[in-house]
Amino acid sequence: MPVAAEGFFLDPGYRGTLQQQIQEMVLEGIRAGRLRAGDRMPSSRALARHLGVSRITVTLAYTELVANDVLEARGRSGYFVSAAAPALPPARSAPPELDTGIDWAARIGTRHSDHGMPPRIQDWHAYPYPFIYGQADPTLFDHQNWRKCALMALGRRDFDVLSHDFYERDDPMLVDYILRAILPRRGITARPDQILLTMGAQNALWIAAHVLLRPGQSAAIEEPGFHGFRTILNQHGVAIHPVAVDEGGMPPEAIPRGVSTIFVTPSHHFPTNATMPAIRRAALLDLARRRDFLIIEDDYEFETSFLRPAQPALKSLDRTGRVIHVGSFSKSLFPGLRLGYLVGAAPFIREARALRVAMLRHPPGHIQRTLAHFLALGHYDALINRMNTAWRRRRQAMSEAIAQHGLNVAGSGDFGGSSFWMRAPDGVDTEELAARLRQDGVLIEPGHVHFTRQPAPRNLYRLAYSSIPQARIAEGIARIARAIG
Amino acid sequence: MPVAAEGFFLDPGYRGTLQQQIQEMVLEGIRAGRLRAGDRMPSSRALARHLGVSRITVTLAYTELVANDVLEARGRSGYFVSAAAPALPPARSAPPELDTGIDWAARIGTRHSDHGMPPRIQDWHAYPYPFIYGQADPTLFDHQNWRKCALMALGRRDFDVLSHDFYERDDPMLVDYILRAILPRRGITARPDQILLTMGAQNALWIAAHVLLRPGQSAAIEEPGFHGFRTILNQHGVAIHPVAVDEGGMPPEAIPRGVSTIFVTPSHHFPTNATMPAIRRAALLDLARRRDFLIIEDDYEFETSFLRPAQPALKSLDRTGRVIHVGSFSKSLFPGLRLGYLVGAAPFIREARALRVAMLRHPPGHIQRTLAHFLALGHYDALINRMNTAWRRRRQAMSEAIAQHGLNVAGSGDFGGSSFWMRAPDGVDTEELAARLRQDGVLIEPGHVHFTRQPAPRNLYRLAYSSIPQARIAEGIARIARAIG
Repeated sequence: MPVAAEGFFLDPGYRGTLQQQIQEMVLEGIRAGRLRAGDRMPSSRALARHLGVSRITVTLAYTELVANDVLEARGRSGYFVSAAAPALPPARSAPPELDTGIDWAARIGTRHSDHGMPPRIQDWHAYPYPFIYGQADPTLFDHQNWRKCALMALGRRDFDVLSHDFYERDDPMLVDYILRAILPRRGITARPDQILLTMGAQNALWIAAHVLLRPGQSAAIEEPGFHGFRTILNQHGVAIHPVAVDEGGMPPEAIPRGVSTIFVTPSHHFPTNATMPAIRRAALLDLARRRDFLIIEDDYEFETSFLRPAQPALKSLDRTGRVIHVGSFSKSLFPGLRLGYLVGAAPFIREARALRVAMLRHPPGHIQRTLAHFLALGHYDALINRMNTAWRRRRQAMSEAIAQHGLNVAGSGDFGGSSFWMRAPDGVDTEELAARLRQDGVLIEPGHVHFTRQPAPRNLYRLAYSSIPQARIAEGIARIARAIG
Repeated sequence: MPVAAEGFFLDPGYRGTLQQQIQEMVLEGIRAGRLRAGDRMPSSRALARHLGVSRITVTLAYTELVANDVLEARGRSGYFVSAAAPALPPARSAPPELDTGIDWAARIGTRHSDHGMPPRIQDWHAYPYPFIYGQADPTLFDHQNWRKCALMALGRRDFDVLSHDFYERDDPMLVDYILRAILPRRGITARPDQILLTMGAQNALWIAAHVLLRPGQSAAIEEPGFHGFRTILNQHGVAIHPVAVDEGGMPPEAIPRGVSTIFVTPSHHFPTNATMPAIRRAALLDLARRRDFLIIEDDYEFETSFLRPAQPALKSLDRTGRVIHVGSFSKSLFPGLRLGYLVGAAPFIREARALRVAMLRHPPGHIQRTLAHFLALGHYDALINRMNTAWRRRRQAMSEAIAQHGLNVAGSGDFGGSSFWMRAPDGVDTEELAARLRQDGVLIEPGHVHFTRQPAPRNLYRLAYSSIPQARIAEGIARIARAIG
């Protein structure tokens, strides 16, 4: 790495010669881990100009450092940090802990970090049997066309989209495509002032909650349900009413009076995979009207109905703007993309947009335009087809292995999806089971993290097939069955 | 555009034949603007399978639509929406306004949209003399190497970085580079647990405010100052104390007692370009310690010190974690990039990270890795040099033209930057002046939007040279001088 002269500053209070000070600056940079073996030092001319000292002073300092094996001179290429220079790991290279003198606990508390996500396994791809949920599968992704679209979006013609501050706007090409080609598949018709692009579904949910809810209000969520709802509501000081789901999702009659907003996954309940029947959807909307609550519909995994045609979204039945619909490309493309959207009544979207502008302006223009090209050229549809074909096969392999080993499915879903919701025998603690299986190369997801009420059942778990190669499924399930014993 | 079969749904309540219903669905899609002339319809086989009807039913419906000039058949290529089909503009194509039955004003108010940004000129690049601030200049940007780095980051080796959900983490390669090569130029040494990547400086400021401030607390900002501070504080219900700046930025002795946080731009005051002298920085830190307030340092434009070496950031003098430092690549690369960072005490960064995870997870992996490559390969330093060379020349041209026409500079800055803060004669209303100049192809920025106290002075304005070609500067300034008269 070339080292910039701009990283060096003279200290007016230094007691010693300029040459000594320069030598110490270099040594300090190495000690602090900023300069590492092989880094190229600024030229003596550049450093002299930046510091406002004579070039000979810098040259003398460098020569002394070479003599001490701290730097090495490589002829006309200049001076480099010597391989003999002490290379400290970054953790040791930091300055002493200086975060003192401020009572952080009193000042900011832990109101955000207290409500974080369940622990995650970061190096899941190092395990041979990763039944983990919600990550991308590199073997299914269409690298080549994504690269092509990214390059198109990086072209000079698209430079405005890439580079400009859009202020509060979204890429009109992407918005147009979502309105014309994505939402209609969910049965939704919307105008441009009824949609807002977001940094994935998480950001959409956060914005919706921040606009709609205030501390002291109350909201209903599914039990079990998506932990993200809980985290967001807790961070906003909102009282949470968990409503136990059945095989049709959240039963409207169980929603307590007084809630101002409910969060649901009607198309594909998280994590049990249940789909809410049409009659219950109508009843839910009717109740919302009578009791004047709003509905946040998280339509995650909306592209994974490979077993039968998808049901239209709850939003498609909404005639009064009472449903706020959340979609995302994280599951169908990849979660690192961070692109999703909110669809809702224009007055709500106006507020959500004003919040998003202050919060982060807009999702990066380049990502928006890359996705717009990918969608418009038909690569997206082809990818969904390929993914659904693979998932259908994997699901089949899962079903067979699960049946063969006598494991118990608690919820599998009628439409598709990417996971099974499983029940281990009473007395099995799936957190402990997961820890044991991990030693055996198998990753499963304990189910208690999806419950709000404590103590939660300990014998439920989730098995996803979105990131595991089909050929490994049978052996992975066999290992789970053995571990349950 | 190919039209997906999944966008069509049968209505169980429809009174009529299936064939009629299919015809009406197509017509409705055209009326709603979802289907446009030239779009390719799903094949009769695909649509029949999706709807669960016989293929002959779909074929009969299509044939009827062809007879009516709604579709056209192109041999083996299939059916296309006819050029004769009514092509309605999207605005007319929307369903009737359905956002009724909910009292949105009572439910959500306008607490976010009330505190929005000053009006912006979206099509500024269509004007010949755009003295506008904060946009990218395509003639200076290094397209070729940015594309190269983006492609590297799209390679299979980097696929994990691109695609995975990082949960709460940042790209370690980018964090390492910022810690080792960017922050040292600002005199700052930090550990990995003292930095958080954000969606640009705006997002960094929003997160900092959300973690640190609660409704009813009070904060001091510069007057005039960055409207973004004001918007964020207003949205959080925080009392704002504007402190009038002088030629050295915010005078510490004018900060009222009782504020818990101050927002400052010490390196380069926004919008007057003043730099806070070292002695005042020391006094500010001392006051913060004595009165126990925190300092948010927005170090925007930190790479534009082309007139003399940059002063180290305020954060570099901080020994107690009392300064939270905000940096961004929006000015040095382009604002559409949306990447910035927060540097602060570890307990603060921990909370900020938990908030960011719930709010948006993380900035897109691809953008993080592209920037990391661009920085590591030295393209960034070269770009900064090229940009500063161009800006130095433009600034020179601005100075000459301003002097020639006798315009009055209110603040130009000693270090560089990208704008002049200007004063028109008393009695000139620069909002009205800007409107007149716009008719003449010249864009200037009225200054009153940067004031919190109302009524604000009306005769100040800002002239930026970051997006105007050098050759147009003289004529642009001449037009401004003529318009002032």
